[in-house]
Amino acid sequence: MPLPHLTQARAPLTREVEVMNQFGERETIFIPAERDLTVYVDKRELVTLMTLGAQPEWLVLGYLLNQRLIASVEDIESVTVDWEVGAASVKTRHGIDHIEERTSKRVVTTGCGQGSVFGNLMDEIDSIRLPESMVLRQSQLYGIVNAIRLKESTYKSAGSVHACALFLGEELQLFVEDVGRHNAVDTIAGWIPLQTSLPAGDKIFYTTGRLTSEMVIKSAQMGVAVVVSRSGITQMGLDVAQRVGLCAVGRATNKHFLCYTHPERLVLDAVPPATPMARERAASPS
Amino acid sequence: MPLPHLTQARAPLTREVEVMNQFGERETIFIPAERDLTVYVDKRELVTLMTLGAQPEWLVLGYLLNQRLIASVEDIESVTVDWEVGAASVKTRHGIDHIEERTSKRVVTTGCGQGSVFGNLMDEIDSIRLPESMVLRQSQLYGIVNAIRLKESTYKSAGSVHACALFLGEELQLFVEDVGRHNAVDTIAGWIPLQTSLPAGDKIFYTTGRLTSEMVIKSAQMGVAVVVSRSGITQMGLDVAQRVGLCAVGRATNKHFLCYTHPERLVLDAVPPATPMARERAASPS
Repeated sequence: MPLPHLTQARAPLTREVEVMNQFGERETIFIPAERDLTVYVDKRELVTLMTLGAQPEWLVLGYLLNQRLIASVEDIESVTVDWEVGAASVKTRHGIDHIEERTSKRVVTTGCGQGSVFGNLMDEIDSIRLPESMVLRQSQLYGIVNAIRLKESTYKSAGSVHACALFLGEELQLFVEDVGRHNAVDTIAGWIPLQTSLPAGDKIFYTTGRLTSEMVIKSAQMGVAVVVSRSGITQMGLDVAQRVGLCAVGRATNKHFLCYTHPERLVLDAVPPATPMARERAASPS
Repeated sequence: MPLPHLTQARAPLTREVEVMNQFGERETIFIPAERDLTVYVDKRELVTLMTLGAQPEWLVLGYLLNQRLIASVEDIESVTVDWEVGAASVKTRHGIDHIEERTSKRVVTTGCGQGSVFGNLMDEIDSIRLPESMVLRQSQLYGIVNAIRLKESTYKSAGSVHACALFLGEELQLFVEDVGRHNAVDTIAGWIPLQTSLPAGDKIFYTTGRLTSEMVIKSAQMGVAVVVSRSGITQMGLDVAQRVGLCAVGRATNKHFLCYTHPERLVLDAVPPATPMARERAASPS
């Protein structure tokens, strides 16, 4: 089955605005763009996503996949994004069964979470078991944190966006930013199945945002067994990670991190020298 | 009309968990609680909110108000929260007209945004005009930033939560934290109309999160003309603030801030001395 036909809609990612600072002076800064993208599936309106708009086609694919409305990108014939009208027209090959019914149940997830998760995503947890062989070496973890640090980004120029990235070991495969981090993870989920030659290796998911239950579930659905976050974890994120066998690593900055679940997936091959300052920081609340 | 009868359901806000740090050592930290609260209106299931759970009754009231499902808290007879079953039972006085129809349109808002906003909240923008008289003095703004800094909080003990607060001038009225910042602002929106003796004064809304369109609209709906954020602003947040006449202040830390919109509401009575370092910081990207 061929891959879906996708447009390559593009739009500016930042906007220049004039602001006033604390000295009463005018200055010019950049803020991230934010646009509404209404998704139509076979001409039926499904949802409106608020997005930065960098890779809208992958976002729409990943959204449909993560909402479990499609089982595979091959169910989709085309995604046509038109920023003039803020619309993404999805054409399926064979329609989506019971779409009305399956999109009727709403869960407002936490914080930067998906917002609107159709159906009972949580019901899927028990069907997911991540292979025990997937591991991350501490030295690779430090490589990941460093790769993110070096990345030129909308965040660096304009702030106020979330970033996600997919790594194989410490090799960056895709870096995605969006005003909503659920969009960023959906974009990665939409990109993966389009890759016909993604090298083998353990997939690692990185996010600047908190590890909520939704981020953990979506990672597991992508076949990722280790997630790394600059931020912390929520209780449900931790519970879900524990259940699906996912190693959740948070507070990852410089050489510091906390492993919340399944530490057996983390190979400690680069334990830093325990300076008094490092030990003190490690003991601080996180 | 009497105010609604509310339970005072309580549940622990943090949980102690054991984690592994970068030295391979076990340590014990706190993470924020996160629970699902399914809202039933007159025995009909409406939505499931993921929340820290500090003030669930105010949250439910504010949610119904901000979704425009009720016009006033007086439309509600009672809100009964039972954490044992994760349910909030709302009893209305006269039902909610066309509730099916009004909850059928979904917008997935940005990032930490509401997630699921029923109906066309944006349609309301043009009906809102904030009085021109509402202002904030720079000295009060610094008082607000300092009051937040001093606040003991779940964030300080466990991290990973968003905070919102309502001020009158620089006087803190209510401080709310939640795993989702949309919940935090909804909680404040539910609390305000219950106050029969809220002192007069210009209401200021503070949030640790980004100023998205949703945060701006909700602030305006609460009659707030100045919002202050530790973070930045999104493009739609800026556009909406501009249109409704709301003064949006972001990047507010220490003496630094950026005023994105309606600077005429900001009285510069405490301009800091322009040290070279301060000027340099003010000129950095925000």
